Amino acid sequence: MSAKIPVTILGATGTVGQKFVRLLADHPQFEIASVAASAQSAGKRYGDIVRWREGTPLPERVAAMTVTRAEPGIPGRIAFSAIEADIAGEVEQAFARAGVYVVTNTKTHRMDPDVPLLIPEVNPDHLGLLEGQQRKHGWTGGIVANPNCSTAGLVLGVAPLERAFGIEKLFVATMQAVSGAGYPGVASLDALGNVIPHIGGEEEKMEQETRKIFGTMSPGGVREAAIGVSAHTNRVPVIDGHLEVVSLGFGRRVSPEEAIAAIQAYRAPAEVAALHSTPALPVEYDARPDRPQSRLDIERGNGMTVTVGRVRPCPLLDLRLVLLSHNTIRGAAGAAVQNAELLVARGLVR
Amino acid sequence: MSAKIPVTILGATGTVGQKFVRLLADHPQFEIASVAASAQSAGKRYGDIVRWREGTPLPERVAAMTVTRAEPGIPGRIAFSAIEADIAGEVEQAFARAGVYVVTNTKTHRMDPDVPLLIPEVNPDHLGLLEGQQRKHGWTGGIVANPNCSTAGLVLGVAPLERAFGIEKLFVATMQAVSGAGYPGVASLDALGNVIPHIGGEEEKMEQETRKIFGTMSPGGVREAAIGVSAHTNRVPVIDGHLEVVSLGFGRRVSPEEAIAAIQAYRAPAEVAALHSTPALPVEYDARPDRPQSRLDIERGNGMTVTVGRVRPCPLLDLRLVLLSHNTIRGAAGAAVQNAELLVARGLVR
Amino acid sequence: MSAKIPVTILGATGTVGQKFVRLLADHPQFEIASVAASAQSAGKRYGDIVRWREGTPLPERVAAMTVTRAEPGIPGRIAFSAIEADIAGEVEQAFARAGVYVVTNTKTHRMDPDVPLLIPEVNPDHLGLLEGQQRKHGWTGGIVANPNCSTAGLVLGVAPLERAFGIEKLFVATMQAVSGAGYPGVASLDALGNVIPHIGGEEEKMEQETRKIFGTMSPGGVREAAIGVSAHTNRVPVIDGHLEVVSLGFGRRVSPEEAIAAIQAYRAPAEVAALHSTPALPVEYDARPDRPQSRLDIERGNGMTVTVGRVRPCPLLDLRLVLLSHNTIRGAAGAAVQNAELLVARGLVR
Amino acid sequence: MSAKIPVTILGATGTVGQKFVRLLADHPQFEIASVAASAQSAGKRYGDIVRWREGTPLPERVAAMTVTRAEPGIPGRIAFSAIEADIAGEVEQAFARAGVYVVTNTKTHRMDPDVPLLIPEVNPDHLGLLEGQQRKHGWTGGIVANPNCSTAGLVLGVAPLERAFGIEKLFVATMQAVSGAGYPGVASLDALGNVIPHIGGEEEKMEQETRKIFGTMSPGGVREAAIGVSAHTNRVPVIDGHLEVVSLGFGRRVSPEEAIAAIQAYRAPAEVAALHSTPALPVEYDARPDRPQSRLDIERGNGMTVTVGRVRPCPLLDLRLVLLSHNTIRGAAGAAVQNAELLVARGLVR
Repeated sequence: MSAKIPVTILGATGTVGQKFVRLLADHPQFEIASVAASAQSAGKRYGDIVRWREGTPLPERVAAMTVTRAEPGIPGRIAFSAIEADIAGEVEQAFARAGVYVVTNTKTHRMDPDVPLLIPEVNPDHLGLLEGQQRKHGWTGGIVANPNCSTAGLVLGVAPLERAFGIEKLFVATMQAVSGAGYPGVASLDALGNVIPHIGGEEEKMEQETRKIFGTMSPGGVREAAIGVSAHTNRVPVIDGHLEVVSLGFGRRVSPEEAIAAIQAYRAPAEVAALHSTPALPVEYDARPDRPQSRLDIERGNGMTVTVGRVRPCPLLDLRLVLLSHNTIRGAAGAAVQNAELLVARGLVR
Repeated sequence: MSAKIPVTILGATGTVGQKFVRLLADHPQFEIASVAASAQSAGKRYGDIVRWREGTPLPERVAAMTVTRAEPGIPGRIAFSAIEADIAGEVEQAFARAGVYVVTNTKTHRMDPDVPLLIPEVNPDHLGLLEGQQRKHGWTGGIVANPNCSTAGLVLGVAPLERAFGIEKLFVATMQAVSGAGYPGVASLDALGNVIPHIGGEEEKMEQETRKIFGTMSPGGVREAAIGVSAHTNRVPVIDGHLEVVSLGFGRRVSPEEAIAAIQAYRAPAEVAALHSTPALPVEYDARPDRPQSRLDIERGNGMTVTVGRVRPCPLLDLRLVLLSHNTIRGAAGAAVQNAELLVARGLVR
Repeated sequence: MSAKIPVTILGATGTVGQKFVRLLADHPQFEIASVAASAQSAGKRYGDIVRWREGTPLPERVAAMTVTRAEPGIPGRIAFSAIEADIAGEVEQAFARAGVYVVTNTKTHRMDPDVPLLIPEVNPDHLGLLEGQQRKHGWTGGIVANPNCSTAGLVLGVAPLERAFGIEKLFVATMQAVSGAGYPGVASLDALGNVIPHIGGEEEKMEQETRKIFGTMSPGGVREAAIGVSAHTNRVPVIDGHLEVVSLGFGRRVSPEEAIAAIQAYRAPAEVAALHSTPALPVEYDARPDRPQSRLDIERGNGMTVTVGRVRPCPLLDLRLVLLSHNTIRGAAGAAVQNAELLVARGLVR
Repeated sequence: MSAKIPVTILGATGTVGQKFVRLLADHPQFEIASVAASAQSAGKRYGDIVRWREGTPLPERVAAMTVTRAEPGIPGRIAFSAIEADIAGEVEQAFARAGVYVVTNTKTHRMDPDVPLLIPEVNPDHLGLLEGQQRKHGWTGGIVANPNCSTAGLVLGVAPLERAFGIEKLFVATMQAVSGAGYPGVASLDALGNVIPHIGGEEEKMEQETRKIFGTMSPGGVREAAIGVSAHTNRVPVIDGHLEVVSLGFGRRVSPEEAIAAIQAYRAPAEVAALHSTPALPVEYDARPDRPQSRLDIERGNGMTVTVGRVRPCPLLDLRLVLLSHNTIRGAAGAAVQNAELLVARGLVR
């Protein structure tokens, strides 16, 4: 038998669930021990009911697994959750109560005061919330969330500048891929040759989550960062990759050269750099005048690197820039896997 | 014979030139008297050398015309110019010197202090620059420019708010159609499923032109408006239609309701409203939460209406909104035709 | 009050239903008297529940109408049906029984032996089936169907050659627009940058319907044409327009020149040519080597003209060609409207 | 120093040239010793002039190389040629004369009677032409061509059926990716939301090359196969991947089950199966009703596997099917690399 940590995937048949299957199939530390989905899928062979849409073949071992209901007791010491938001509350809490660590991509618990909203490179200390979370609820497991896809790229992409200079104001306009809406998601009649300047709830998520992730751990919990954030979110006809244009204001004047130097010097903390999913460069600067581009640059660092380009002065704030992230890897499944790796590194899961 | 005003089209074979042909083919006041293009096209039948890409058929009368060189002396009391920027300076000045009014879509003269950068609904008084222009150069004709495509939609779309409340700060991110780059323009390998976060010179144009158009006529010329503008320009895989997301700061707090009311009350001055190309609503507010959309809303007012939607508070400035314009009509050929109509209405061309 | 014929639209909220609303809003002979949809929509204001997606604004008069159930007794002497196939059988028959002529775009009755599968330019004599249809069922109304979208373009496009030379064998491969699948229809994750080589039931429809439409009226009904048809149907990322590549075999050698001459000489019968929706050229030949193209050529004849190009020899059969039709006009709503116009011209509806 | 065979790339800056760089950068047998391009690029650093568009980073070692002219004498015992067709004749012959084996993706020499048009899995015996080629021209090197991209997928995809049953007639309609046209290639205004039913010279290539590749080696050269081929070639808005729908006629009735069994049993000859670039399954059958799809299935076998699906009866010939291949790997650079590997395996290059 394997010495890997057995894990389960909640919501294993959806878009993000499939990405979990793919990322975990060959993971050095984790082994898929069960796949859970809705009641009507339970009891069926995973390979028979999943509408597999990843570019690589469905791993045969997983295809042969019988889908279970998403209920505590199924094999797995970590639960990767891509479960639907309307039922995620109860289900994820039930797993945490049963001693399982839930690393969730679902929005439900993200803004809970005692749930870490985690980007390992940025705020690994927020894991400290878990102790209070367990005490308060009497859980032996816990819940750790990763941010919304558009927030993940934004926060990691500007993290070198926040760390170096302190961000006070942030404008962001996104051009988001259709894969962010799941499957079937956006109708082709809406997507082809079109821009939809509205994604329900997305702007609020970006504004709130950014302040929480950049917040400071204190005895009473996370004190939100005092960053003013204004987000304009848009859907564009791109398969994968959220491109975001950003204007930033700092407490003092920051030149493009200083900013680029800060980005280029940025590295994950040693503990995080050692994780399997952490790329060599969490943030990479591309000096070419027309980069990053959605289709060409999303695969860097196996989809975990955020690419930043076009750092230049802003006539209204201090700097403008462009950033790009892979929305279903750095912005979803890859983020949760990395979060789980940090839980293991910290000894919370063995 | 027709009592219409004979006009010429400079650069008649390109994308904008073709749009001029289409818009002028059935115009009630203008009649195409000549079509001009590069030296190697001169002498050939227009229908034989144009790679016609408009959705409606090439008018037979124009197809049969012989292409001339772009030199003064060719028939036409107005010259619609879509000529390339690197030669537009000399050519357009030669026509003005020869007594022709040049309404140009080319960037070359836009920021010249004595050239009106005209949106008839917004700054018709800037036509007053023509007198000084003629005096200075000793011309009997003149040059009138329309703004860059992304500026045209922006300025007209926020004009109701500028007029009602006075704009101090403006942040804009564009998602621009490929037709704005002409033909062949953007390679399909760059456009398909991609976003290109860079359009050469576009951000500077938006920032400068906006201040000039909203500027005040004074004895010494146009005094630029004191509006801080920060533009992020992007190319998206859309055929026609520039969608722009905007944050606005005013001298005082403005509520979304006030702003929407100002947009809905906005009308062109009577003189301009009477022009053939001026739409009933130069700016139309769409209250649906996910509109305007590039593919669905560009044809309003025959492509001359700017649609505004999603007026809502901005966490950093005062308001956020979305606006959409047809980049090759309101942003190019249609704009020039409307400018020419205003010249006729003013009696400058007979 | 209007002297127009009152009509109803069954399934008025869907994609084809909306196209009916648009085409009938300004029709010289018809006036929308009611709009019918599913039970849960009945009683509501049409403008409140329709997710209007046409490029032109929703007519205010129709927006204000109250949606009714699709049951006989609602105002309208003709019923334009875009109702879903699984309930169309009963509903359409009920209207026919109640004396209403149903012109349907739904597939349910297309292959019924006593239902005309009508393309007015091609087989207007098939309307002769109506007498037997009424006698058999005891109806005072009747049912007339138009073909499937991909069949409509194919049959009309090759009709000049069938009439002139007689087709024996026909290969066709289609590249069909996503609008053919309705809304939401094809997911953008399936459509963007992709080809889907399968459209359920489409190949069988093309093979069967072609033989029926080209069939001969006889006392016992329509005798199917003895044409061998092999269809390969594919979905491509195009909004509107079905492009089809075709190889044809005739009883004798036919040269490209003969075929082009036959296409250029093709006209609708006088009775059909006089209908409002019949274009001047039902089939138009475009001699340019790279035409027709989906995006550039679908609007000819207000979407009712089929464009043919690239007639050239076929190494296996006799000729190859390309044809293009507007799938939601000539292939759906426009076809039904034209069918209704023929019913009126024949005096069947007054 | 490396024991790898030094190779050169002719036309190294273009789309296919870049793919060569990527495929050869980590090749176990080959090492890029020089990169050649046009005279105006010669002398410059490759990394400075290439507009790198591969998804993986440009290898630093290659970026640092100085571009040379495409003239014999530059380092490399094999020349991978992606040189433009109008100059390929002279250049490739000069290299062959100088003792270099040229594996070319350019069309110029494909139909030369003494040049092998090679797909290693299908006609490795055609390498026998090289002896006569060398004798005739007095060369110590030689020229080996791979087929046009649309032919490569077609021929390999139907090779199992040709081998098992013998093909007599073949009808094919292609839906080809824009990358097949190079860069900048197809304009986005032509590609977006459109189908272009014409690719210059492509149909003739498919018809001729298919017969040559399936031809029989005889003392006098290759005797072309007596297969009737009718091709309809189309460009669709897809980045990579040529999807082709095919009808096939054999000398006898072949059932879909027999055909599928033949495809599933198909393997490369042992000598070819051992090559680095040969995939485990050169042709893979996918039984799902809507596969293969361009975007989802091109990466199989690292882009060297042709996927076949939807084998079903054809009403006119015997069988219909769908096949998909990666046009820039199996259809271009990958094909040439595999050809070079066969030359090495045969001991022609050491």
